[in-house]
This record gives sequence, structure tokens and C-alpha cells, in this order.
Amino acid sequence: MPEDLPDTVTEHGLDGREIGRVRAALAARDDDRLSGYLDALHPADAADLLEQVNTAEREELLARWPGSIDGEVLSELSEGLREEVIDLLPPDALRDAVRDLESDDVVDLVEDLDEPRQEAILDALAAPERMAIERSLSYPEESAGRLMQPVAVAVPEHWTVGDVIDYMRARDDLPEQFYHVFLVDPRMSPKGYVTLGRVLSHARSTHLMALTEDSYRVVPAETPEDEVAYVFNQYHLISLPVVDDAGRLAGVITIDDAMTVLDEEHEEDILRLGGVGEEELSDNVIDILRARMPWLMVNLLTAIAASLVIAQFDDAISAIVALAVLMPIVASMGGNAGTQSLTVAVRALATRDLTSSNMARVVRREAIVGLLNGVVFAAVMGTLALFWFGSPVLGWVLGAAMVVNLLVAGLAGILVPVFLDRAKLDPALASGTFVTTVTDVVGFASFLGLATWILL
Amino acid sequence: MPEDLPDTVTEHGLDGREIGRVRAALAARDDDRLSGYLDALHPADAADLLEQVNTAEREELLARWPGSIDGEVLSELSEGLREEVIDLLPPDALRDAVRDLESDDVVDLVEDLDEPRQEAILDALAAPERMAIERSLSYPEESAGRLMQPVAVAVPEHWTVGDVIDYMRARDDLPEQFYHVFLVDPRMSPKGYVTLGRVLSHARSTHLMALTEDSYRVVPAETPEDEVAYVFNQYHLISLPVVDDAGRLAGVITIDDAMTVLDEEHEEDILRLGGVGEEELSDNVIDILRARMPWLMVNLLTAIAASLVIAQFDDAISAIVALAVLMPIVASMGGNAGTQSLTVAVRALATRDLTSSNMARVVRREAIVGLLNGVVFAAVMGTLALFWFGSPVLGWVLGAAMVVNLLVAGLAGILVPVFLDRAKLDPALASGTFVTTVTDVVGFASFLGLATWILL
Repeated sequence: MPEDLPDTVTEHGLDGREIGRVRAALAARDDDRLSGYLDALHPADAADLLEQVNTAEREELLARWPGSIDGEVLSELSEGLREEVIDLLPPDALRDAVRDLESDDVVDLVEDLDEPRQEAILDALAAPERMAIERSLSYPEESAGRLMQPVAVAVPEHWTVGDVIDYMRARDDLPEQFYHVFLVDPRMSPKGYVTLGRVLSHARSTHLMALTEDSYRVVPAETPEDEVAYVFNQYHLISLPVVDDAGRLAGVITIDDAMTVLDEEHEEDILRLGGVGEEELSDNVIDILRARMPWLMVNLLTAIAASLVIAQFDDAISAIVALAVLMPIVASMGGNAGTQSLTVAVRALATRDLTSSNMARVVRREAIVGLLNGVVFAAVMGTLALFWFGSPVLGWVLGAAMVVNLLVAGLAGILVPVFLDRAKLDPALASGTFVTTVTDVVGFASFLGLATWILL
Repeated sequence: MPEDLPDTVTEHGLDGREIGRVRAALAARDDDRLSGYLDALHPADAADLLEQVNTAEREELLARWPGSIDGEVLSELSEGLREEVIDLLPPDALRDAVRDLESDDVVDLVEDLDEPRQEAILDALAAPERMAIERSLSYPEESAGRLMQPVAVAVPEHWTVGDVIDYMRARDDLPEQFYHVFLVDPRMSPKGYVTLGRVLSHARSTHLMALTEDSYRVVPAETPEDEVAYVFNQYHLISLPVVDDAGRLAGVITIDDAMTVLDEEHEEDILRLGGVGEEELSDNVIDILRARMPWLMVNLLTAIAASLVIAQFDDAISAIVALAVLMPIVASMGGNAGTQSLTVAVRALATRDLTSSNMARVVRREAIVGLLNGVVFAAVMGTLALFWFGSPVLGWVLGAAMVVNLLVAGLAGILVPVFLDRAKLDPALASGTFVTTVTDVVGFASFLGLATWILL
């Protein structure tokens, strides 16, 4: 425990100087100094350090500091690096590292490893813990059963505050972190929970049933983790009991796990909206190409589709080169307006704010916004085209195409994600490509089509 | 407390049928049925209901169910709707609603209201609570001081488990939710904390100082809330004590508040990357236009810049119309590759994974990825141009422009956000526009420039 505050008050996370010191100690092969720095780091910061240095430095670090990579550091590492680090650790060091982890952290650590690596870790554990972890692993990936801590503090529903205090003082295997005592019936079915604060603040004779809280909710072990995160967020929960098929208490999920899920979902949304597959900063060039190329290939196909539209109007373009100069503006404005509308829609679908109840209203509003944006920018661009190319008719054509494309952009931006969501696809994944294809095609076709019809 | 589970197990959040039932009861003017439905809703779901119905329905709902809007529902409402709902409530109902809220929720509720509305709410509170809230409001917006619950359970550092149990049983004003007992010295400076689980599981004679946890950290009340969220996330905290200028314990932030901040930051990141200002689904057309038009205006300027580049090459385009057909492909591929690279960079900056320690490596990697992407798509597009227009030279020109633009896209995608971050601007806010301007200009200039030089 710190005796004075400065460290914990002003410094959070690693800073460049710390990394610099570690690198210097590594270069000087000064193992004592190195251990001094590394041992003082919080496991989360040690994991960040391993992510920040390059591969050669990482190997050397692990070789010079093998006993100190504990399970906490392993579970803080990004998934991409975990396998690499696990392979670099001697089997004994790996075993020691895993032994002092909580079961849910072990599950998180082993679930993405291949069979031999999984076995190596599970072999290190005592039989009861191994069983608990194998039970968790038997639930579907990304489900409540994988997230939960399989040990919950559960007591008979007829107990008093005094009973639970005596019980807890007698037990020496309580979880590291827990916030509720669960009340169960004789079949181990959970009936409610009591916060530790209420247990502590009531007389020994008080019945626990009189202290249970309204916020109480339960989920089956098969519940998907995004649903779990939603329940935590929506109802401000701290603990959520998980039940098996028979309705028995199987474990408990705590808010810190839900926060991790929320963070991962957010990462996924942002990367997918940006047209990137699963990618970590520690990935190498090959991994990155694998994450990005498929998206660029899709974009190439849609760009070719837009070009085919332009090719239909090559006569118009040879006659009036100004069309080639102005057409990207129509497409670009449509792409941007469509992206705005789809970003809001994707986010609202993720937070469940956009539902069948308000859909019609939201679509109507996007149409009005698209139309109004269209009129404003039509006026601006029409005027600009008039002065730039001295042709009032060209101005009118550009303005009209702008109105059409911004209206279409607003509608596509909301309808495409909604349609994908109804088809049980992730709207974040493909909306961008669909919407910009629509706005490119409509933008080029409306502008060049109107120009051909009116100007030629 | 529920006696059987179905409700809490399978149904989370509002569903369309519930909203339909409420609407039907509203249309039938059946106040009893309406109250029956509404009273059964969790405050978070009641707030969602108010967000999902339209303005007229909302007014009627509040008129028919005024006493039942409690503080919880108010604090669950999206910010945009809060003022509207507060204005619709009779002063008495508002006062009742606010009285049973925790202080940090009151702060969250009043901080965005204008002066008269703020006064109306503060007047409803008892003097000590009002003072606590005004103290919180004296800290900067979006700081730890605003987030914290100003009441913490703090006891002298020399106390034992028995002392704290007796103290808690005697107090009747403990916070609703708390997870740690803080140990303070005689000057009220916090020295560590003990989880309630440890208090409960140790004998009465145990000294609290022997039970403190390593995870303990402290922040000053001025700490920005994104830093607070980072500290919670990085170190898996549940409670974080907040100290004032004199180092005295001023309050405590709990993980649920940090989760809310994290969620808001996510929302902000996604919307900014999508080129939308602060926008809520409940906003009206005017608010939406205000959030989106400035961005479209910026985009228009950059689109015009790209057009000016094209205009430099009008002779080439009149001579070879194929250039106008193919040029959007070069720009579009560059825009997409740049967006991929910037999305990863913006996210890595937000999670503090991209730092001065690994910057050079990441930039080099983006350059290599850009170059390799460029070569692959140059080959594809060069071949396509050859077969489409029967000109090998046009194929080479297109391929060369593609290599140049994808390399530039990769570099711009990483360097622009990093530059904005160093300039203390939010990289999510403006990177997209900058990067696509670069890729449009470079795409058009390299393709049309090379074509002019080689083909004419």
C-alpha cells in the first residue's frame, strides 16, 4: 500500500520514458536494473510494454525475465501476442503463471489457443479448477457461460446476516472480487441477491431475504455476450447470476467483464465501419494485408460499377469536359451524406434506440434532412458552376443532381443498415460499401444523365 | 423480488409489443391499464419508451402519468429529451422526482440544464445535499469531481473489522451502492481501501490496514473523465477515490460511472469518424441539420479542391474520355485504403496503444502495406484497363497511379491522425476529411498527370 500519493495520483499507464529506461537496461544487459523496472509495473502496464517493443526486444525481455511473466500479464496481453508469448515461455514458467489466475481469466486465456497449448495450460491446474474451466469451455463461444466466474458466494435463502458472516469467515476460498451474496433454494436455483454493503450494515439477526435488491436479474449460460453487456449497461448491474439448463446457479458475471465485452464490441464496430477486418496494432504486414485486402477488393468492384455508369456518358463528357470536372463533387457529397446517416443508424441499432416503433419516423426524418441538405448545397454548387463555367443550365443540372443524390444518400444511409440488421447481418460490416456504391452510381447517373438530356 | 425467473431470464429491454400495448392504452385513454404497464417498467426501460414514442405521445404520456416519472427515469433519459420532459413536469412532480436520487445522478441531471431549471431542481433538495452538489458542480465539466459520488464510506486507518461493522450498523445514511471502505488519516487524506468481501470474511479483531488492496489508486478532482475511464479500464478498478486540492477525500467514482463515460466516448468516436457532430436519435430535423451541415460544407470545399485538380487536365480528358471513366477508381481506392489506415490509427491512439515508442515501426508498416496493396491492385486494374480500352499504356498509367495513391493513402492515414493528436486535436474529428482530400488530390493528379505526360 502506498504511503504517499504521487505515483497513484498523477501517473497512469506507461509513458515513453519508462519504455526508454527498459530499452536502455535491455541494451546494457543490466538484468538487475531490468528486473527492478519490470517488477514495479502493474500487470496491465507490463502487458502494454510487451506490446510496444518490437519482436526482437520482446524475445530478449522474456528470456531475461521469465519467472516474472505472471498469469495477470498473460491475460492482459492482446490476443495476437498471447500465442507468441506463450510459445516463448518455458513450460514451468507457463504453469506457474496460470496457477494463480481466477477461473474466468483462465477461460479467457485458453479459449483462443489451439489444442496442444490449451492442454499445456489445463494440465497445470488442480482437478476441481480444471473441471470448472472445462465446464465453462463447454458453453458456446462469446456466451455468458464463457464470461462467468464459475464460483459464486451462494447461501440458503433462509439464512440471516449472522449466518453469512460466520460462513464467510470460515471459508478460505472466496473469490478475489465479489459484490453480492446469492440466495439459493435447495435445488441451487438462485432466488435473489444481497449487496455486501447491506449485509455489513444490518444486525446479525436480520434475514437476508429482507435485504434483497430489485435490480436482480438472471441470464442462462447460453446468452450471447453482447446481450450480457446490454443488460449490464441498461440496468446498471454489478453482478449478474448465470444459470444452467436446469436453472441452477452456474456462476456469476461481474461488471468488469461486461466492460471488457463492451470495449471489444466498440472496437469491432469502429474497425468494421472503417472497412478493416480484425486487426491489432501488433499485427505484422501479412496479417494486416489479410484484414484489409478483401475490403479493398469489394471497393474496387463497386468503383468499377461506378465507372461503368460514367462510360455510358462518354459522348457527353467529350462534348463538355466540365462534366468530368464536376461529377466527383456530386458523388463525394452523396458519399459523405450517406456515411453520416448510416453512422447514426448503425450506432442507434447497436444501442437499440432504433426499433420498429420509431423506424417510420426516423426514415421520414432522414428523407427530409437529405432533401434540405440537397437544396442548400444545390444552391451553393449551382451558383458556383454558373460562375466557374459561365453556364446557368450547367448550374441547374448540377443542383438538381445534388438534390437527387443527397435525398438518396439519406434514405440509403438509414435503409441499408436496417435491412442488413433484419437479415441478421452486422450493419457495421457492410453498410459503408453498399451506401457509397449507391451514392456513386446515383450521383454519376443523375448528373451525367440530366446533362445529356438537357445540355446536348 | 421475483419468485420465478422467466421475466428476468429471457426479457431484457423494451420490445415492440410492450410499446404497442402502451400506445393502445394511450389511444383508448385507459389510464388504469396505462399506469399498470408503465409502473411495471424498469426506469431505464421507461426512459427508452419516452424516447421511442413521438412528441405528441410523449406529452400525453406525461400528462396521464405525472407522479410516476421518478428521478431514475429522468436520469436515464437522453440529454436531448431531458429538458423537454423537465419542462412538461409540474414543479411538484419534478421536486419529488429528484429528491430520491443519489448526489452524483443529480449532478449529471442538472449540469447541462440552464440556470432557472437548475435552480428549480436544487431548491427541492435539503441543504447538505445541495451543498455537496454545488461543490461537485464547482469542478470543471467532464472531470472526476463531476462524476464522483460526494459521499464515501471512510473510517480511521487504525480501525478494526469489528469497528467498521459496528459503525456501519449504526449509520442509516450509507450510499445505495458501495464496494470499498476507505481508510483515512486524521487530515481525511485517503491511505488505502478494503473490499467489503474482505471485511466480511475476517475476524472482528483484524486491523483494516492488514486487508488493504494493491489495486488502490487515487485521482485529483480535476482529472478529465476520459483519463478516469482509462484508469478504470486499464487497472480493472471498481472504486476510485477522488481527492481535493488539499489531498482530502472528496468522493468516490464507481465502475458504473466509468462505464457510462466509456460508452459516451465510444459514441463520440464513432459519430466523429462518420463526420457527424453530436446527434441523438431523438433530435429534430433542425438539430440534425446543425450537426451535419458544417461537415458537408467542409467536404464540399475539399471536393472542389479535387475538381480544381481535374480542371488542370481538361485537354487530356477531351482527348481521351477513358481518363474520366477511370479516374474515380484511383481516387476511391485511395480514399478507402486511407480510411482503413486512419481508423486503425485513431483507435490505437484512443486506447493508447500507438505511442512514441512504436510510432516509427507502425508508420513503416503502413508504408509497406500501402505499397503492397498498390502493387496488387495496380496489376488488377492495369490488366482490366488493357482489356477494357485496349491500351497497354493506359493500363501502365493506371497501375502506376494506383501504386502512388495507395502508398500515399497508407502514410496519410497514419500521419494525419498522429499529427492532429500531437496538436491536441481529436484525431477522430478531422482525420477523415484531411485524408480523403489527400487521396482525392493525389489520385486525380497522379493519374491525369501521368496520362498527360505519357499518352498525349
